[in-house]
Amino acid sequence: MDVEKILRQVKNQELSVQEAMGELKNLPYEDLGYARIDHHRRLRSGFSEVVFCQGKADDHLRGIFENFYSHRINVLGTRASRRQYELLREQFPEIVYDEVARTVKIEFEKQEPFGKVAVCTAGTADIPVAEEAAVCAEFFGVDVSRFYDMGVAGIHRLLAKREEICQANCVIAIAGMEGALGSVLAGLVDVPVIAVPTSIGYGANFGGVSALLSMLNSCANGISVVNIDNGYGAAYLAAQINRLAVKGKNG
Amino acid sequence: MDVEKILRQVKNQELSVQEAMGELKNLPYEDLGYARIDHHRRLRSGFSEVVFCQGKADDHLRGIFENFYSHRINVLGTRASRRQYELLREQFPEIVYDEVARTVKIEFEKQEPFGKVAVCTAGTADIPVAEEAAVCAEFFGVDVSRFYDMGVAGIHRLLAKREEICQANCVIAIAGMEGALGSVLAGLVDVPVIAVPTSIGYGANFGGVSALLSMLNSCANGISVVNIDNGYGAAYLAAQINRLAVKGKNG
Amino acid sequence: MDVEKILRQVKNQELSVQEAMGELKNLPYEDLGYARIDHHRRLRSGFSEVVFCQGKADDHLRGIFENFYSHRINVLGTRASRRQYELLREQFPEIVYDEVARTVKIEFEKQEPFGKVAVCTAGTADIPVAEEAAVCAEFFGVDVSRFYDMGVAGIHRLLAKREEICQANCVIAIAGMEGALGSVLAGLVDVPVIAVPTSIGYGANFGGVSALLSMLNSCANGISVVNIDNGYGAAYLAAQINRLAVKGKNG
Amino acid sequence: MDVEKILRQVKNQELSVQEAMGELKNLPYEDLGYARIDHHRRLRSGFSEVVFCQGKADDHLRGIFENFYSHRINVLGTRASRRQYELLREQFPEIVYDEVARTVKIEFEKQEPFGKVAVCTAGTADIPVAEEAAVCAEFFGVDVSRFYDMGVAGIHRLLAKREEICQANCVIAIAGMEGALGSVLAGLVDVPVIAVPTSIGYGANFGGVSALLSMLNSCANGISVVNIDNGYGAAYLAAQINRLAVKGKNG
Amino acid sequence: MDVEKILRQVKNQELSVQEAMGELKNLPYEDLGYARIDHHRRLRSGFSEVVFCQGKADDHLRGIFENFYSHRINVLGTRASRRQYELLREQFPEIVYDEVARTVKIEFEKQEPFGKVAVCTAGTADIPVAEEAAVCAEFFGVDVSRFYDMGVAGIHRLLAKREEICQANCVIAIAGMEGALGSVLAGLVDVPVIAVPTSIGYGANFGGVSALLSMLNSCANGISVVNIDNGYGAAYLAAQINRLAVKGKNG
Amino acid sequence: MDVEKILRQVKNQELSVQEAMGELKNLPYEDLGYARIDHHRRLRSGFSEVVFCQGKADDHLRGIFENFYSHRINVLGTRASRRQYELLREQFPEIVYDEVARTVKIEFEKQEPFGKVAVCTAGTADIPVAEEAAVCAEFFGVDVSRFYDMGVAGIHRLLAKREEICQANCVIAIAGMEGALGSVLAGLVDVPVIAVPTSIGYGANFGGVSALLSMLNSCANGISVVNIDNGYGAAYLAAQINRLAVKGKNG
Amino acid sequence: MDVEKILRQVKNQELSVQEAMGELKNLPYEDLGYARIDHHRRLRSGFSEVVFCQGKADDHLRGIFENFYSHRINVLGTRASRRQYELLREQFPEIVYDEVARTVKIEFEKQEPFGKVAVCTAGTADIPVAEEAAVCAEFFGVDVSRFYDMGVAGIHRLLAKREEICQANCVIAIAGMEGALGSVLAGLVDVPVIAVPTSIGYGANFGGVSALLSMLNSCANGISVVNIDNGYGAAYLAAQINRLAVKGKNG
Amino acid sequence: MDVEKILRQVKNQELSVQEAMGELKNLPYEDLGYARIDHHRRLRSGFSEVVFCQGKADDHLRGIFENFYSHRINVLGTRASRRQYELLREQFPEIVYDEVARTVKIEFEKQEPFGKVAVCTAGTADIPVAEEAAVCAEFFGVDVSRFYDMGVAGIHRLLAKREEICQANCVIAIAGMEGALGSVLAGLVDVPVIAVPTSIGYGANFGGVSALLSMLNSCANGISVVNIDNGYGAAYLAAQINRLAVKGKNG
Repeated sequence: MDVEKILRQVKNQELSVQEAMGELKNLPYEDLGYARIDHHRRLRSGFSEVVFCQGKADDHLRGIFENFYSHRINVLGTRASRRQYELLREQFPEIVYDEVARTVKIEFEKQEPFGKVAVCTAGTADIPVAEEAAVCAEFFGVDVSRFYDMGVAGIHRLLAKREEICQANCVIAIAGMEGALGSVLAGLVDVPVIAVPTSIGYGANFGGVSALLSMLNSCANGISVVNIDNGYGAAYLAAQINRLAVKGKNG
Repeated sequence: MDVEKILRQVKNQELSVQEAMGELKNLPYEDLGYARIDHHRRLRSGFSEVVFCQGKADDHLRGIFENFYSHRINVLGTRASRRQYELLREQFPEIVYDEVARTVKIEFEKQEPFGKVAVCTAGTADIPVAEEAAVCAEFFGVDVSRFYDMGVAGIHRLLAKREEICQANCVIAIAGMEGALGSVLAGLVDVPVIAVPTSIGYGANFGGVSALLSMLNSCANGISVVNIDNGYGAAYLAAQINRLAVKGKNG
Repeated sequence: MDVEKILRQVKNQELSVQEAMGELKNLPYEDLGYARIDHHRRLRSGFSEVVFCQGKADDHLRGIFENFYSHRINVLGTRASRRQYELLREQFPEIVYDEVARTVKIEFEKQEPFGKVAVCTAGTADIPVAEEAAVCAEFFGVDVSRFYDMGVAGIHRLLAKREEICQANCVIAIAGMEGALGSVLAGLVDVPVIAVPTSIGYGANFGGVSALLSMLNSCANGISVVNIDNGYGAAYLAAQINRLAVKGKNG
Repeated sequence: MDVEKILRQVKNQELSVQEAMGELKNLPYEDLGYARIDHHRRLRSGFSEVVFCQGKADDHLRGIFENFYSHRINVLGTRASRRQYELLREQFPEIVYDEVARTVKIEFEKQEPFGKVAVCTAGTADIPVAEEAAVCAEFFGVDVSRFYDMGVAGIHRLLAKREEICQANCVIAIAGMEGALGSVLAGLVDVPVIAVPTSIGYGANFGGVSALLSMLNSCANGISVVNIDNGYGAAYLAAQINRLAVKGKNG
Repeated sequence: MDVEKILRQVKNQELSVQEAMGELKNLPYEDLGYARIDHHRRLRSGFSEVVFCQGKADDHLRGIFENFYSHRINVLGTRASRRQYELLREQFPEIVYDEVARTVKIEFEKQEPFGKVAVCTAGTADIPVAEEAAVCAEFFGVDVSRFYDMGVAGIHRLLAKREEICQANCVIAIAGMEGALGSVLAGLVDVPVIAVPTSIGYGANFGGVSALLSMLNSCANGISVVNIDNGYGAAYLAAQINRLAVKGKNG
Repeated sequence: MDVEKILRQVKNQELSVQEAMGELKNLPYEDLGYARIDHHRRLRSGFSEVVFCQGKADDHLRGIFENFYSHRINVLGTRASRRQYELLREQFPEIVYDEVARTVKIEFEKQEPFGKVAVCTAGTADIPVAEEAAVCAEFFGVDVSRFYDMGVAGIHRLLAKREEICQANCVIAIAGMEGALGSVLAGLVDVPVIAVPTSIGYGANFGGVSALLSMLNSCANGISVVNIDNGYGAAYLAAQINRLAVKGKNG
Repeated sequence: MDVEKILRQVKNQELSVQEAMGELKNLPYEDLGYARIDHHRRLRSGFSEVVFCQGKADDHLRGIFENFYSHRINVLGTRASRRQYELLREQFPEIVYDEVARTVKIEFEKQEPFGKVAVCTAGTADIPVAEEAAVCAEFFGVDVSRFYDMGVAGIHRLLAKREEICQANCVIAIAGMEGALGSVLAGLVDVPVIAVPTSIGYGANFGGVSALLSMLNSCANGISVVNIDNGYGAAYLAAQINRLAVKGKNG
Repeated sequence: MDVEKILRQVKNQELSVQEAMGELKNLPYEDLGYARIDHHRRLRSGFSEVVFCQGKADDHLRGIFENFYSHRINVLGTRASRRQYELLREQFPEIVYDEVARTVKIEFEKQEPFGKVAVCTAGTADIPVAEEAAVCAEFFGVDVSRFYDMGVAGIHRLLAKREEICQANCVIAIAGMEGALGSVLAGLVDVPVIAVPTSIGYGANFGGVSALLSMLNSCANGISVVNIDNGYGAAYLAAQINRLAVKGKNG
């Protein structure tokens, strides 16, 4: 552990007290003024970096990607508009855009996929959120199976795929409107179900609240919920669970 | 039609203009001061009378039952406490109390049951609302089948009863928490599903709002919703639909 | 029943166990990758297919219509923009657009209208939702009568049409703002009233919540509610009720 | 005007500058420490005093009544429990309690009733709020006509009383649940309708929110709204309107 | 009264029973198909007609104005866009547009102003709602005084105008944000205060909810509330109150 | 697989078609009339049974425990009142009550604990929810470490325990009020954080909504949320994750 | 600084590396198991300790007070019931209870009051929250002036006290219902106004939401808001501001 | 005091009663018709004037700036669009625009900065609100330190800056999403923390409600909240607190 090393150097007079105090404060992040890029997080979390692009000023976005690029760190941007992609492409020609998932990606080296996550949607309109989840999970190195348009109103469509879905170490259930997919899936599998409510629907769906409440109040076991439309968040959690399932506890 | 009859009497000088004007205003309701009992509604609707007991003052409750009793009209009271039942029993010894459904009933003559409604619940805690619906539907003369604790988290329980449920002319789907039962049922049957959200659950169910929104946003066809815990309202509608199915349009 | 037939074939050695297992899983839907078209639903429900166009990607929309078109199945699209109509017209020249109802329709054969539904609105601004309901009900084969701008603030307008409305097997009550039309109509007729709250209004109407709550809390009997602006949903339910009233229970 | 009088006294050296400054600050209220009784309000408003009893500490309640009593000013207490009434009766034996309206009253002299207000309710459960309104309006000297249980689900009950209601200078419309009574009444009369939503109902009435929103979004003209269950507030406004109608502008 | 006249004609055999029944149903409204123009309302209410333009289809808008125009009835349109004004101007050159109030007006004869209403706003951003109220009140024949930017944060601005405001028969208090103007005004005057919450503000004003709740919960007497931004509704009510104050009860 | 076995028996004429059809429908649940006990779920999920006691009728509660007891299946009851415990103790003397966690437990055989979950609370008032989580997790066989009163307002208390918490395979973060503990913990560990909002707090906590929204909107990675006060749900998920981490994917 | 001292001891071999690491982790809090009493906070904040009593288990409450008592540290408990007071009095006879403020207090030494805070309420029902604020502020050593029942509906009551209120270094404005007191006060003084919404009111006050929103949307300058009914929070902030005003920045 | 001076002049017959009455009413504001510019506020508050530009009509905006300009009073405009800046620049060429903070400024003389406020944000997307706060605080003369992107998910970034932040007399904590920064900061410093929730986030952040509730429910001491995105309001309060800390109580 680092603190121990610093203390040993102090003991051995290899480091002055003032230097030691500085070191103790200096955790590895870089200060861009407008953003503090947390390289330490990558060490802590074990996963590559993901940047939330929406609403970022052009200069900030370019600066953040530049920083990762110069360290040759894989980086994925979510909620990226086509305009943002074009802006970044000028500087980083190898950047790749996924129109449906709205992601930009610079990948210096690809890792062998591990584990298995099943990404399921209730309808076709939920696919963009699902693709955000799938692309992010793949970026974190997890093997992804897609099961789209499995809405509970025609339950046989879901039952027909049950066995395939049961192969996964965890399931991401993505649904708008009444959001019942989460409960039904959690009743069928024996692994964690990460429910993602979407803003799909109209009227009394209140921008995703109907699906959110439905999922929070699920009568099924083994289900938890992330923010409305938060495909990225579900993918991150799925990657953690798969790492535990496949590699055991790291560190 | 009455207006025609009144006009004919005016034409034939059997009724003065002043009398006719009075008649035109006099629709058949009785004014108890605190309540206007609408005997006309029974003619209009074709169903016996139901009284919402909760919150009624003792005197008012007694007076309303007295009025029906004296006309020998069948009457059912919903949301009746045991105390209200005991109060009414003093005066009307033949009154019957249903502890689970919280109903009181005075029935002078019973009709032959017609049609079929399937009353389904997601959990055991939804049974009181279901029994209110079932008792009311039976009071309106409809044949009732009960399917309780069919929660979607173990979908096989529901699938096992599918064929029986499909016999009904309409289905009442009663569920709290995430309220997914409505969508799943509406995906399995081809008759109207009347969804009753219940206040069962805790936390982010917000007293039934989660189930209510879920049911309003159902991705299934042929489903409509009544107020939270409103078993009576679902029963009335089910009786109307069964009457249409069995007897065709009345009048 | 199909399962029986499959089992008999297994018994008679006409089908291997593996084949039988495949059959049991194979329900008639087609997998387009992004959408699972449920031809089985048409068999189950007895009604032609309706597609929710809003938010569908161009490719998906075309693919779904192509699929129905190639099977020569009548298809109606709701919430269709003029742009979507023009897109589809390129490929399916016989497609028809209704500007007010925002529907597109390809109809290979028309059926004789049956039953009767009264579609009523409180104001002129509710007409687009009403036309969605009316066009869908007609697509399902139901005879439609329209009663528009019957707002309760001038109750005589409604009373004057009372008798005509009472002819229907069910009534669709469409209103924004305070949504009182549903209660008043349900007090006048003896058939089911399907209430459609609309988002018409401003300020404390909260996008249709005022009308929605009003309709859910109706003191009248025989009323149920669908999602805000959901003309289609009301029409589907009305078609089911009319089928029951006119043809009795199918199957 | 007082300020003028004070200034004149200063000019005429009848009042020192310091005294004048004190006078300018001294408006006629009495400071009980915990409450500042505003005798000035009575002068300003022209109506007797009303005290909101609910939640007042016993000592405070007694002190406030003592203060009015010692000035022999008529006083009415609203939202008074039977316990509070019994507490006050010990000290003020002439105090009168109204169980339904939950009011206590000490009246030293009664005034001749003027004007006319029609207090209407949708159901019997709204009567306590209506009686609060009626008792308060009578305390302010207004003549009150009561029309209870006029719910819009049986619109003929309301139409039968239309002419009588139209006699009033203003109408108080009291309703819970869907609160449609306000719109219907405002469509029938040509005087201000003061709508009082009540907390009567259950489920999605959300403690009166459904009726409140319904009334705020009324499509009828000449309607305004007070707080849920606020019978007193409606009565005060009705008294002001009647005073204008009968006596013209005061002052 | 009309019913009496019809009955007398029946009695005198001047009208057949069938004709009489038709007459009884025929109240004076005109059916444009999409809209039922209620000329009867003008008789009932005593005020000229106002049309809510926002969201009306061009054809409907023109048709409604055409109808009034052909009867030479004064008509005012609220929430009218400049585009709608230009559309109507082509057909009705004498139409007048008020950019701030967003009203269009065709006035065949002007009436002498009567009474007095004080229209007050908390800020300058509330002026459009205030002008809608002022223009409508003037159209109904009421004399209007304007008091703008009287926000309670600098209470001396309001106190300086107190006497002038006190001249009015009723006060319209228009405020967004915390909406405290209503309470403060109702504490200063002895006539009805009609509070209009506006959607002015940002963040936790929730589109006018903060002002709406503030006004509904006012601790002052003699205040009632209309919908958010509903200047027209306040004006109508103010006209009714002024008519009562100036002319006594009509009819 | 069972379906295969049944089909083979049909092929081999060991089972008639009718018997096979019955078997295909008969999944292993027991119908108590009011409840369908799902023994199949135990097979599917691999965990012992947990019963939600709150609101269960006495007869139903006894019946459900009787059923498990007679099969000698370990059973845990959550949200159990002391009265319910005493009721069950009469029949099942070996039942154990935990006053803080509000659980009742009958355990026929105990399993060796596996894995590790860290149960953390922000305050002392969150302890009952934490104990529900801890007792449930232990019942599912997971080893539990408790870290209570780690509120973020004194961040050093949390930092001091960081290393211990980092040992766990997953972390349950329980907090009411502003619910910030979830974000802070998820920023410190590299395993899934299951956030449980609690209803602890007052005023604008709205019964747990403040903590719920806070946790759903966390800016940290690897966090998901269950219902307000749902300690059980968090424990179930934690058990699934630990099983994956320790035993890999089952079956 | 402590870290420096520890490092120097390591350098001087007075402390082993392991001991140093332990010291670095040991910040001065005491672990009672169920609660981590943060003596460090008192050093950081400079104020005595306050305990939130509501909902604390009896054992925990006693344990926490015992801990402070044994260190002879002044301690104040808020939201304390009479029962909790009696419980603590058995063990700590010098404890003092304030019935209105609902506080218990053990004070070993009293400090000289400094600064000045004006605690103002709109009504008498707000006094309990005000007394919580006042008692807490006095416990923190601040001089308190009380101004109760200053409601804006009679603005002269407030204006009469203006000068006295202006003496304070900061003002606490406590109001329920429409919560306008905050805006009016902030318009009159030139120091920070801490607004405390209260749950006083009924109906559309939604437990304090109306006052909360009103205060958050204030059009006045120099106002900020704490949680509904949070008198303690306002007092703490007022003490910090007074310390800055009187003593300048500490440390 | 002015009133005293006026009264003395009356006493000395230097002022007639009528003139005195006029003076007493004339507080120093200027009436532009649409706006009442409150020069008195500047005297009362001691700070220069700030204008909320958003939604102001062009003429009004120009008029208000013209008024300040002609009195050579420093003026800052917030929420100013680039278009508004360009409009004003035509007339006031010395006006300065800050694109990020969205402010326009005309400063005739600059004051020496006093005190110290720390403006902290959780993320980079919160910077526009932070710059509004910072620019306003600087305009009021306060010295500002900026600490951006200190989000609690990587708590070490915040801890590293702790000492610098502790220098300030008060801290402005700006955060969207879960808004935990306020609690964490208030736990680290001993001066007032002014929390500004921002609308940054998506889904269940509900436009800033999640951060707002989080901050209102903070378990930390010494924190209060302003409206969502209200950087200006926080700056004003910070300026008042700094003036108290540095200059003591003014006046």
